[in-house]
Amino acid sequence: MAVYTDVTAEDLNALLERYDIGGLTAFKGIAEGVENSNYLLATQSAQYILTLYEKRVDEGDLPFFLGLMEYLADRGLPCPRPVRDLGGHVLQMVAERPAAIVTFLQGYSIRKPTPAHCEAVGASLGQFHRDAEGFAIRRPNGLSLKGWRLLMDAIGARSDLFKAGLGRKLEHAYADLERAWPSGLPAGVIHADLFPNNVFFLGNRISGLIDFYFACNDLLAYDLAICMNAWCFEIDHAFNVTKAKALLKGYTAVRPMTGPEIEALPCLAQGAALRFLLTRLYDWFETPETALVKRLDPNEYLRKLEFHQSVRSAGEYGI
Amino acid sequence: MAVYTDVTAEDLNALLERYDIGGLTAFKGIAEGVENSNYLLATQSAQYILTLYEKRVDEGDLPFFLGLMEYLADRGLPCPRPVRDLGGHVLQMVAERPAAIVTFLQGYSIRKPTPAHCEAVGASLGQFHRDAEGFAIRRPNGLSLKGWRLLMDAIGARSDLFKAGLGRKLEHAYADLERAWPSGLPAGVIHADLFPNNVFFLGNRISGLIDFYFACNDLLAYDLAICMNAWCFEIDHAFNVTKAKALLKGYTAVRPMTGPEIEALPCLAQGAALRFLLTRLYDWFETPETALVKRLDPNEYLRKLEFHQSVRSAGEYGI
Repeated sequence: MAVYTDVTAEDLNALLERYDIGGLTAFKGIAEGVENSNYLLATQSAQYILTLYEKRVDEGDLPFFLGLMEYLADRGLPCPRPVRDLGGHVLQMVAERPAAIVTFLQGYSIRKPTPAHCEAVGASLGQFHRDAEGFAIRRPNGLSLKGWRLLMDAIGARSDLFKAGLGRKLEHAYADLERAWPSGLPAGVIHADLFPNNVFFLGNRISGLIDFYFACNDLLAYDLAICMNAWCFEIDHAFNVTKAKALLKGYTAVRPMTGPEIEALPCLAQGAALRFLLTRLYDWFETPETALVKRLDPNEYLRKLEFHQSVRSAGEYGI
Repeated sequence: MAVYTDVTAEDLNALLERYDIGGLTAFKGIAEGVENSNYLLATQSAQYILTLYEKRVDEGDLPFFLGLMEYLADRGLPCPRPVRDLGGHVLQMVAERPAAIVTFLQGYSIRKPTPAHCEAVGASLGQFHRDAEGFAIRRPNGLSLKGWRLLMDAIGARSDLFKAGLGRKLEHAYADLERAWPSGLPAGVIHADLFPNNVFFLGNRISGLIDFYFACNDLLAYDLAICMNAWCFEIDHAFNVTKAKALLKGYTAVRPMTGPEIEALPCLAQGAALRFLLTRLYDWFETPETALVKRLDPNEYLRKLEFHQSVRSAGEYGI
């Protein structure tokens, strides 16, 4: 939620000369996305978002992210469409950073989703999975089992500084997941970060999915397990089965799930909870308290992990 | 340049029910203004800016600031116009902060002003001074001689920690200004912070003046002296007399200056440089290095102060 790199009107006027989208009429740094700098750009033709990719995004991944957005936009998914310059290029350099202009989407993210919102998100995630079929570039998920191990090693003994006994809990959870992680389930491109701040609504209708910078190839049902963690808990971290039921209903109406996928949900949900617990814990120690980015509380995901560990079967999620 | 207070779509939908400007279609936190939180608000009718007033703004001053913006907008000055709700009120409470919706202005601030930009700024400042005549509310300038004394006392011995010998320089400069500060010059409402980031251009034409939250009653020529400091030095802090000439030409074409005003310019310019040197120095010690707001270098204004101290007469400014 920050603007890390300063862009001048002079930079933008030079950039826009390479496009056929009109001259600059306004621009503002906006607080959207945690990894990159974003500017709202108004030209004589329309509004756009200019994203500058900061160091946490690997430049080699940009053809995957930007190609995926264009591929999905072509198929009608409401997501930002990268705008090509007069030479057909999407990727630019602005203020010494890789950068891209994408279309502006109406709508706004909501803080307190209702079951109707959850059902809409489920349907959009199903559409995302179907629309992404056939996308040619591949990107492995760096934040699955192997990545979690690397994060745990990097955090090391500090997990017990955060909370006594946490290190042992993490090791147990990891060992369980390593043993039980499913293979052979339907796989494809997943969003991998479809939290409420990355979904725009107009009323109960979804007007946009944004922030594709964790997208990768992995099990489709794992993406749904991430959404279950992100959308179906209350502010006091209590699980809301009505919302989970709505999410799963919306998803399966678009993309029916296989039996093994449904059975694997508790395990996948534990994995999703561990993934966000570990990145939050890592950031907790690596981010200064007064930094531009607000640190998110790892405890929230520890509680979610413990909830999923207590689940005996997918039926408890309302499916 | 930050969003300090988090506003939800739920907050905004509730707020917009009190207005006749259509339903919410998008909103983004924007990096504009250093004192307040700002959101770009799109509704079915148009775009607006929502400002939440943070603790550095005195609530008692809001009728002055908002009243002035409406007064000037009524007279045709391109500035944000506060939007009245169905009950005729401008001031609201949002997320437990005083807040107001104002109209969105096209244009963008520039980093490297040309003499043509400086002439346009001079003319707009003259227009501001003329248009503000007759505005009924008064607000004394808290950042004039008395305020500088308070800041110097608050900074205390720390000025020498910033730079050896600085404390003595400040005392000398202050004593000079206290002795020479003019009285009896034309006074009125001044903007008091018309820096490049508070002026929007479309090409060489000014499309908006923003950020009225330092406006107050003071000597009109002091406002021009602030602009001379803000617009007429190069990035290496060298004075550019061509830009000063253009600024003064633009200003006097709209509002001719009296002889005593012209004579007082070197003194007023020293005062303006001291004012920004002191607030930057104060913020230097009071703002953590990693805070949301980037600290501005006090040295820039020490060099400007020393330049103005070397000026023998207003003729050296090109007038």
